[in-house]
Amino acid sequence: MRTIFWEENAVKMIDQTKLPDSFEILTCKTVEELGEAIKRLSVRGAPALEAAGGYGVALAVHERSFSSTDELKEHIRKRAEYLASTRPTAVNLFVGIERVLKKALEGESIEEIREIAVREANRIADEDVERNMKMGEIGAELLEDGDVVMTICNTGRLATVDWGTALGVIRSAVKQGKNIRVIACETRPLNQGSRLTTWELMQDGIDVTLITDSMAGMVMQRGMVDKVIVGADRIVRDAVFNKIGTYTLSVLAKAHGIPFYVAAPKTTFDWGKEAKDVTIEERSREELVYCHIKCRNSLIAPRDVKVFNPAFDATPLENVTAIVTEYGIIYPPYEKSVPEILRL
Amino acid sequence: MRTIFWEENAVKMIDQTKLPDSFEILTCKTVEELGEAIKRLSVRGAPALEAAGGYGVALAVHERSFSSTDELKEHIRKRAEYLASTRPTAVNLFVGIERVLKKALEGESIEEIREIAVREANRIADEDVERNMKMGEIGAELLEDGDVVMTICNTGRLATVDWGTALGVIRSAVKQGKNIRVIACETRPLNQGSRLTTWELMQDGIDVTLITDSMAGMVMQRGMVDKVIVGADRIVRDAVFNKIGTYTLSVLAKAHGIPFYVAAPKTTFDWGKEAKDVTIEERSREELVYCHIKCRNSLIAPRDVKVFNPAFDATPLENVTAIVTEYGIIYPPYEKSVPEILRL
Repeated sequence: MRTIFWEENAVKMIDQTKLPDSFEILTCKTVEELGEAIKRLSVRGAPALEAAGGYGVALAVHERSFSSTDELKEHIRKRAEYLASTRPTAVNLFVGIERVLKKALEGESIEEIREIAVREANRIADEDVERNMKMGEIGAELLEDGDVVMTICNTGRLATVDWGTALGVIRSAVKQGKNIRVIACETRPLNQGSRLTTWELMQDGIDVTLITDSMAGMVMQRGMVDKVIVGADRIVRDAVFNKIGTYTLSVLAKAHGIPFYVAAPKTTFDWGKEAKDVTIEERSREELVYCHIKCRNSLIAPRDVKVFNPAFDATPLENVTAIVTEYGIIYPPYEKSVPEILRL
Repeated sequence: MRTIFWEENAVKMIDQTKLPDSFEILTCKTVEELGEAIKRLSVRGAPALEAAGGYGVALAVHERSFSSTDELKEHIRKRAEYLASTRPTAVNLFVGIERVLKKALEGESIEEIREIAVREANRIADEDVERNMKMGEIGAELLEDGDVVMTICNTGRLATVDWGTALGVIRSAVKQGKNIRVIACETRPLNQGSRLTTWELMQDGIDVTLITDSMAGMVMQRGMVDKVIVGADRIVRDAVFNKIGTYTLSVLAKAHGIPFYVAAPKTTFDWGKEAKDVTIEERSREELVYCHIKCRNSLIAPRDVKVFNPAFDATPLENVTAIVTEYGIIYPPYEKSVPEILRL
């Protein structure tokens, strides 16, 4: 089942704010409802947001009736603006909105526009799934039967439309009949690993063990890990930007001689830039002061403690054994192999 | 102010289960009350528990009146047994109980026994404070004015009777007029770093910044850390056993060329043993499934997820730059220097 999809003229999604406590399908019949869902992170993850943006435009053309195509086009332009404002930093959201908006505006009748918008939005979703399945098949060859694979954050179905990136590689290996066990780091401070990754893998019956991020070194020292595989938010000439904690895992993997893989689609590469060009987002102190967004009544630190809370870190490419993309597995030297294989 | 002390024929302590939400002094007038406090971790930390054991015997001789010294001696023997059962694995608790019990039984009158018990219990507490102050003064020479020091777990006043071990070294450096800033790792899963260490340092006006354990690598990569100093639960011939996450910090420090120091009293050394002789305690899965002991209603992982939750890890001595003890700073080669300096 997909994380987000179109059904009965509505956008439906797995409500991630309810996991792992309960599994609920959220139905959005208006752009307003979808915008609220995006704001409170009921849907998250770059690829999933691209689809959400596309479906948002489809919603705009279905949420009410129109007396003329001009009135309709005027309406969807306005709703597209609103939708783009719900996660101002999420580039993929804009990409999805713009792509469907552009196509829809080419339609000549209300009926045609409705058809085009839904078709194009579904295409975005389908393309994401295809790309992830491709990446998974390609990357699966890196995993051997019996491997124990460590990962961080959530790079699975819940971060994409379906299948996932790094978790997608694990899924494909399991689909090929390999026995793969996963060690999921809880991924402080927002616990995407413990809340989402474990839930997803358990749903699929894939063996998963949860640890705290601080245990990664000890389990490697004990020989309990064969490979590490992570996703990426952005890959520049000299580093992989990903969830905070990824760099620590890369140093530990190197120290223990464990392969460290990154799985990310071509769209993640920003090859013109270097690590020094990228500013790392610092998030709110509340994320460390309260044990969990869902229970702000329970302090785990003094209310007024000083906090440093970077959301991402930069893993130097020399710590990366290989990068899995939908175009193939890329090995060092990356300055040569990346442009070649991705045709950049 | 001390973490635990004797006042008005009662044992008083900072109730650590209330921190950082509120600061409360808990008063125990009976051995029963003290036993309950130990069970729910209102007082924790090996040195603090040794004092608690001693004060427990002092409570036994004060909690009621006796018609004869024999009746009194019979009573304190019984209460000592009960007290020892409250934290079966805490060696230091027994040590404190036994030491005061032995002395008290030498007394010939009820009055004398009461005097002896309180005096001996206070001695245990005084000795711990003296030892920590000594260790702090000795270790402070390792810290320079302007240093930023990273630490994990709580090794401060709250883990001892006062001053602390690793935090004691930092306190002493600050007392010497050095400007020291601390980076405290939150220390999952029980967050002693975020709940206790930050609180303690803020009380003393020492500059502290809280991070998640997963951020340690990134802040070292950024050059934000000059030194790492941690405590120890047990030091054997080839490794330092300490809170889970310590080994990861030692690998990161090594990779970034940052000195990694351990501060621990002579009583922590178990030089006859090696890492392979030590079994690491695995704690309950609930610690990772609920975001915080205090809010079990908020799941951060599927209820039935498989968990690996070791409480400690083993840092090879080759990752340790020096060990601070009350007998001096010990440098490699440890197989030679440790027995020499500690007269083992």
